[in-house]
Amino acid sequence: MIVRHHMGEYPVRFVGTNELNHEGVWLADENVLRLWPALAGHDPIVIPSGETSKSMARYEQVVRTLAHRGAKRNQQLIAVGGGVVGDLVGFVASSYLRGVPFVQVPTTLLSMVDSSVGGKVGIDLPEGKNLVGAFWPPVQVDVATDFLKTLPERHFRNGMAEVWKYAFIEDWSVSEQALRPEANLASLIKRCIEIKSQIVEEDEYDRSGRRAILNFGHSIGHAIETVHNYEDYLHGEAIAIGMVAEARLGERLGLTLAGTADRVAACLTGAGLPTEYGDWQNPGLIEAMRRDKKNDGEGLAFSLVTQLGECKLTTGIAESDVRAFLESL
Amino acid sequence: MIVRHHMGEYPVRFVGTNELNHEGVWLADENVLRLWPALAGHDPIVIPSGETSKSMARYEQVVRTLAHRGAKRNQQLIAVGGGVVGDLVGFVASSYLRGVPFVQVPTTLLSMVDSSVGGKVGIDLPEGKNLVGAFWPPVQVDVATDFLKTLPERHFRNGMAEVWKYAFIEDWSVSEQALRPEANLASLIKRCIEIKSQIVEEDEYDRSGRRAILNFGHSIGHAIETVHNYEDYLHGEAIAIGMVAEARLGERLGLTLAGTADRVAACLTGAGLPTEYGDWQNPGLIEAMRRDKKNDGEGLAFSLVTQLGECKLTTGIAESDVRAFLESL
Repeated sequence: MIVRHHMGEYPVRFVGTNELNHEGVWLADENVLRLWPALAGHDPIVIPSGETSKSMARYEQVVRTLAHRGAKRNQQLIAVGGGVVGDLVGFVASSYLRGVPFVQVPTTLLSMVDSSVGGKVGIDLPEGKNLVGAFWPPVQVDVATDFLKTLPERHFRNGMAEVWKYAFIEDWSVSEQALRPEANLASLIKRCIEIKSQIVEEDEYDRSGRRAILNFGHSIGHAIETVHNYEDYLHGEAIAIGMVAEARLGERLGLTLAGTADRVAACLTGAGLPTEYGDWQNPGLIEAMRRDKKNDGEGLAFSLVTQLGECKLTTGIAESDVRAFLESL
Repeated sequence: MIVRHHMGEYPVRFVGTNELNHEGVWLADENVLRLWPALAGHDPIVIPSGETSKSMARYEQVVRTLAHRGAKRNQQLIAVGGGVVGDLVGFVASSYLRGVPFVQVPTTLLSMVDSSVGGKVGIDLPEGKNLVGAFWPPVQVDVATDFLKTLPERHFRNGMAEVWKYAFIEDWSVSEQALRPEANLASLIKRCIEIKSQIVEEDEYDRSGRRAILNFGHSIGHAIETVHNYEDYLHGEAIAIGMVAEARLGERLGLTLAGTADRVAACLTGAGLPTEYGDWQNPGLIEAMRRDKKNDGEGLAFSLVTQLGECKLTTGIAESDVRAFLESL
């Protein structure tokens, strides 16, 4: 599969773990290294597992390590791990020596179907998620589904949140495969990457609102992650809660077909994902939403499903309406 | 004047300080604010003066301040100051919310003739200068030469180092104007920007070696800055020393016309710039040069003047030869 972007294109290849033989500087998630000890042969820079690695402190540590290792502008970085490693290493690649090539080797379901494709990289600030980053496409994405054999169940479900998102926002037919993901996992992953890459090609820089539909559930989901300091909830868990809440918000605003939120909730519950949240009155949620990148200055922005398989960015929703809505949940 | 780049183009305008009325978030050098108090009306984020502001710590502080102020993706940043502020704010602009537009308002001679044009932005690491950054062109450059009236003499000379560099590397005829810069300063600045923007347009991403000629004197100059923790020497002072030393190195290697180094030294001495250095045996110099972005893995790289008005990137110079050369100085 080929993904096109403004500066060129990159292949997404489905490979075995034994085919991962890139030249360059390897950076890998510590859990992945423990489970796949052969990777240690590449002398990787070890990235601690978990969203807290998407921090300024970790970013600084990694670029300084590259400087110490004497990594050159013509050497590529190979990012082996989930979305955290891909986003962090991608931002490092975009900025170390003003930019070096990098290869994405996603090892989680979530990063295979979502974050490894599309060129968005970045880190979090205490003020909010992904507030610093770049558009920096990889030069290649290598999907080795073997990695999923060692993925903990909770992390598999985490990825399913993004799989279901594609069904909700763009192609309801994905839901059939999503109900039985193990039946043909590679084909499901391929379908998700196809949907994502097509949307990204139509609006690489997030300008027309087209790419923003990938953010369904993320205004509220990111706010939950921020309020919890990127602990407690995995990304997919937070956006599962966010998708249900945003579908309810859409219904409240008359933008979403009645009954959609319940169906979204049923799908996610069936996938073993959380859909409820206990702290909707936390003022930190609105504060975090205020810093969402989709906002254009007037009110808050949400990518709202209009009906199953269709989504649209809506801006300018009054903060007071959102606050009242959250308190009613 | 219009500068073209891969994504579009931007105008360089010569304006009065009273014409600086951009909408957006202002960020300004603290010394400039003290000397031009009217700028405080824009409620700028204050950047402490000096190269040490091109640090990861300052970068983090600025992006977090923008998040706290609620700066949005459609708001531009206005960078008012010298090369430090332009490079720092430019890197912030390239990465805050994955990129926002920014305007360069250079207030020093050095930033007017060099760093505000060309799109290179970045910060330093303890390991070396400009090791982290981006290619992120401004949307506009506003040159207000009025600012030079309050520029300390040492900083004016600092800028003259880069003015002389254009004479050495590309157009010896610049030397006539450089001998009497005050005679027609605006015209001299314009000529320098023309030379730089033409070189940058030919090789925006530093790939062919063409843009690298702008780095004459910088392999050694950056190493001196690094060894001194970006204190003691201003950038132009360090590269004045670097240009003389690299011209001597070029002569030693038979790549530079004999007698060139003495003429380079005479021009810079005449401009009140340092050309000697007392610590050539410091092993930190070679270590810093090893991390220079121009290196491709084999030996060290230098942009060497071949004769006055002509320069060429040379890679693969053995470290041992450079060390022996430095010790002979």
